[in-house]
Amino acid sequence: MDKTALAQHKETIEKAVKATQERTYWSHYNESPKVYGEGGQEAGEKEFLALLQKPFTLNRAQDAGMVGGKKSPFGLSLDLKYPAASVDALVDAAKKAQPKWAAAPFEERALLCVELIHRINKASHLMAYATMHTTGQPWMMSFQAGGPHAQDRALEAVAYGFAAMSQVPQQEVVWEKPQGKQPPISLAKHFAIVPRGVSLVIGCATFPNWNSYPGLFASLVCGNPVIVKPHPMAILPLAITVLEGQKLLKEAGFDPAVLQLAVDTVAEPITQKLATHKDVKIVDFTGGPLFGQWLEENVKHALLYTEKAGVNSVVIDSADDLDALAKNLSLSVSLYSGQMCTAPQNIFIPKDGIQTASGKKSFDDVVAAITKATTGLLGDDARATEVLGALQSGETLKRLQGEGQKAGVVLPSRKVTSAKFPQAEIHTPLFVQVDASEKERFGKEMFGPIVYFVKTKNTEESLNLAAYLAKDKGAISAAVYSNDEKVQTEAMELLFDAGVNVSFNLVGNIYVNQNAAFSDFHVTGANPAGNACLTDLAFVANRFRVVASRILKPVAQAEAPPAAGLAASRS
Amino acid sequence: MDKTALAQHKETIEKAVKATQERTYWSHYNESPKVYGEGGQEAGEKEFLALLQKPFTLNRAQDAGMVGGKKSPFGLSLDLKYPAASVDALVDAAKKAQPKWAAAPFEERALLCVELIHRINKASHLMAYATMHTTGQPWMMSFQAGGPHAQDRALEAVAYGFAAMSQVPQQEVVWEKPQGKQPPISLAKHFAIVPRGVSLVIGCATFPNWNSYPGLFASLVCGNPVIVKPHPMAILPLAITVLEGQKLLKEAGFDPAVLQLAVDTVAEPITQKLATHKDVKIVDFTGGPLFGQWLEENVKHALLYTEKAGVNSVVIDSADDLDALAKNLSLSVSLYSGQMCTAPQNIFIPKDGIQTASGKKSFDDVVAAITKATTGLLGDDARATEVLGALQSGETLKRLQGEGQKAGVVLPSRKVTSAKFPQAEIHTPLFVQVDASEKERFGKEMFGPIVYFVKTKNTEESLNLAAYLAKDKGAISAAVYSNDEKVQTEAMELLFDAGVNVSFNLVGNIYVNQNAAFSDFHVTGANPAGNACLTDLAFVANRFRVVASRILKPVAQAEAPPAAGLAASRS
Repeated sequence: MDKTALAQHKETIEKAVKATQERTYWSHYNESPKVYGEGGQEAGEKEFLALLQKPFTLNRAQDAGMVGGKKSPFGLSLDLKYPAASVDALVDAAKKAQPKWAAAPFEERALLCVELIHRINKASHLMAYATMHTTGQPWMMSFQAGGPHAQDRALEAVAYGFAAMSQVPQQEVVWEKPQGKQPPISLAKHFAIVPRGVSLVIGCATFPNWNSYPGLFASLVCGNPVIVKPHPMAILPLAITVLEGQKLLKEAGFDPAVLQLAVDTVAEPITQKLATHKDVKIVDFTGGPLFGQWLEENVKHALLYTEKAGVNSVVIDSADDLDALAKNLSLSVSLYSGQMCTAPQNIFIPKDGIQTASGKKSFDDVVAAITKATTGLLGDDARATEVLGALQSGETLKRLQGEGQKAGVVLPSRKVTSAKFPQAEIHTPLFVQVDASEKERFGKEMFGPIVYFVKTKNTEESLNLAAYLAKDKGAISAAVYSNDEKVQTEAMELLFDAGVNVSFNLVGNIYVNQNAAFSDFHVTGANPAGNACLTDLAFVANRFRVVASRILKPVAQAEAPPAAGLAASRS
Repeated sequence: MDKTALAQHKETIEKAVKATQERTYWSHYNESPKVYGEGGQEAGEKEFLALLQKPFTLNRAQDAGMVGGKKSPFGLSLDLKYPAASVDALVDAAKKAQPKWAAAPFEERALLCVELIHRINKASHLMAYATMHTTGQPWMMSFQAGGPHAQDRALEAVAYGFAAMSQVPQQEVVWEKPQGKQPPISLAKHFAIVPRGVSLVIGCATFPNWNSYPGLFASLVCGNPVIVKPHPMAILPLAITVLEGQKLLKEAGFDPAVLQLAVDTVAEPITQKLATHKDVKIVDFTGGPLFGQWLEENVKHALLYTEKAGVNSVVIDSADDLDALAKNLSLSVSLYSGQMCTAPQNIFIPKDGIQTASGKKSFDDVVAAITKATTGLLGDDARATEVLGALQSGETLKRLQGEGQKAGVVLPSRKVTSAKFPQAEIHTPLFVQVDASEKERFGKEMFGPIVYFVKTKNTEESLNLAAYLAKDKGAISAAVYSNDEKVQTEAMELLFDAGVNVSFNLVGNIYVNQNAAFSDFHVTGANPAGNACLTDLAFVANRFRVVASRILKPVAQAEAPPAAGLAASRS
């Protein structure tokens, strides 16, 4: 381990801490694939292909055979097998690895975390393919969300941990209490940062890295050993992450079991057993609301951070340029086939239409504009594939097909054929028109490429419905289009009260789906979409504890009569 | 509301924030009764007596009749009745009061919190009598722990809240993302601090203010309305606190229901219903392990912070001066009759005795020295009353009497007669000698004035037992006497691993029972004695959430083709 190289990460951490507090634009890992060198993409693909049809080797043995997934959502045969381990073996190894990791100064842990992110960053082109062929994300998104954007989120978690731990004095503190004319009482105090204990990070099928890195790095920097349990369909990106981590830990003289991989199959899941193990002290979960709720009800002994999902809304009240609005939304609803937890599901439009700079537009005009923009965007199959990616799960396809049979379809979903990936399930979004009264249709999460145009009495009803759904079902994003300051204020009040972040009047190359590290707090923790924010101070500050020692400094202690000194500071 | 006077508290907050990070000696509220003015004690007693045999009036009506306690642990007839309210009425009123309080800038809330503490501080002499005659604490402790020490703890919570919220940008933030040769994307962002929601603070019978203020003020400063539910036997100190708060809130133009009092009787408790109410979002609890565990198992929908109790240990390995050690411990075990959650219960001594500056002392010598110091300290009844206070509950008396019948008694408990309080149950501590193998005796919490001298093989066994009990049953304090650096290091390792703070070699006028605000983290949250620390960053940082708005700044947006801009920052 080159300590000098490591020390250079200190500046990165300091910049990152500053960025978490300023929340203006800042990014440490470049999102442009080109920056990663000529031929990087091809090399990454080659590296990825070289991993297939083989057992994946970690840096330490595991005890329960090999399990793994067979197929990419793009149809590619993967046949990747990962070494499995029993729940007890994982937890025991983590516990054994903990003391040395916990005893390292937190700054050393932080520097090692940044070094790990740095190494993962260098593997971004490999990670792009690993992400693409496990999640079904289109390539560019796989590169960015599986690579630099996730890495920025990881660095953000390290920065919060570093800042929180920095508030605890690291040097001896002398507590000297004046005693009138007598010599003061003097205690030398040491404050030790200790970890909570074994940390479990449960990944999801759609954004394995982006969603797991915050919890993973937040726990790691605070001294906790981490067991990463990817979704059985999206193991590879996290397996690569764990392997890089294990290599680095070994180099740095730590037990590689500080970072472990837990794998299982859809048929024989181990996550419940892991999450309720008595020695697991922190659980991070991103994934479906059903399992999230199960965890919320059953994990009583550990800290639990959840990001589930919800029903995201767009409220259209007025616009400068309907076409610009339509173009923007067409991408928002199409990107990765609506499989982002920030993707809009419901678009609320007043029955009497909206005002635009070029005059009044009817409800039908608005629907037609968005429909036109979407069919335009996705007209070409090759281009559509680059936007939509593939459906990650058969459940989503079934949901899409079921909804396509029902009343109100204004734009049927179209199956896209990819020359490169003939077996992939690629489908354009389904547009359905419903009335505000049909809450049983649009009032629940319909994960995937399903969009409802909801006809409301007026914008007030639109806003109230959006806020009601966020409060009741959870929401991670909201978008409002309005030039009316009163409407903007009302929207802010209602949606803030529902605990959902809101974007106004987005057009051009910025989308409601996007949450930028170091600026946007992802998930508020203030509605049922999740109980935590990835990442803020509260997400990290409880992952370590402080234990202190006090030793009396041997000065001449004149003893006061105890009755005068019943300074019984406490209970 | 005098805004200028209020603004002066800003400096207090800044000093307090600095103190939480430095953790040297700092106190804002003077602990010396004399500082509070000539005749203050007498005036406080008068004020207290004037409250008795009357209904206690809050600043707003409640809907469920009057309930209250009859008798002080010192035997004084109180016959105080408090206005009760139904659970739904309390929660509804809190919810109605929340929006305006939450909408105030956090700095305004922080200043008002400090103003409230400032006013409570002025009432410290009244609070001393209110605390004394509800908890049984001796007067000096009542003054300090019910007054200035609790007020410092309150200020500490406000400081942590202020610091955590200060990290969220309060002004508009411009996020400007470069787009190569095109104009940057520019979003104006606002970050709003929103409260979690209704906060419930459950007080305990022994330290109503000291233990409740951290949660109360942490929730309040973060914008949450607070319902204070005192223990039915210790209502008055918190009722006075709530009344002062309601008066101040009204003056400042807020709904006094931002701070409410919930009262019940031992026979008809309402705490479970309150704690599991769906609209209660934060629960703070200090009290017995049994109810604490019930809460940990049943409160799934709200943040829960518990301080329960545990088994505190003293390990004696060696000492400079056995008499000084004995004197110090005699006060630690006598103060408020062991009814402090930091009071030592088990004193581990090696069977072969210990080394001191004046030669080897046998196990029996050590026991004899502590016994002698204790009988000396408590020999005079008037003086003993000032140290012991009264037993708060009949349960504690029964436990003491039961243990007194068993084998191993080396110093029986003696009933102390107070001329001033002839009806009070005042009892000196019971000393019992047991062997390290008798874990069924000393291996559980025996709340009250019961002390075990545990004869161990050696210091190693002593330390292992102390650490084991802390891990298994919880512990809030530990004391070690040793001049051997190796033993000190081993003690630190073992006890830190068990998540318990440890004090070394305390003699003179400083006791293991004492935890000072702004320096000692009270409770680590790292063993079963409690899941949180009162107070640290983690105790406060999750009591508010951040919700954000983003609005596109109307610069000329050249639209890049979407495929190049699939900057799909996230899931």
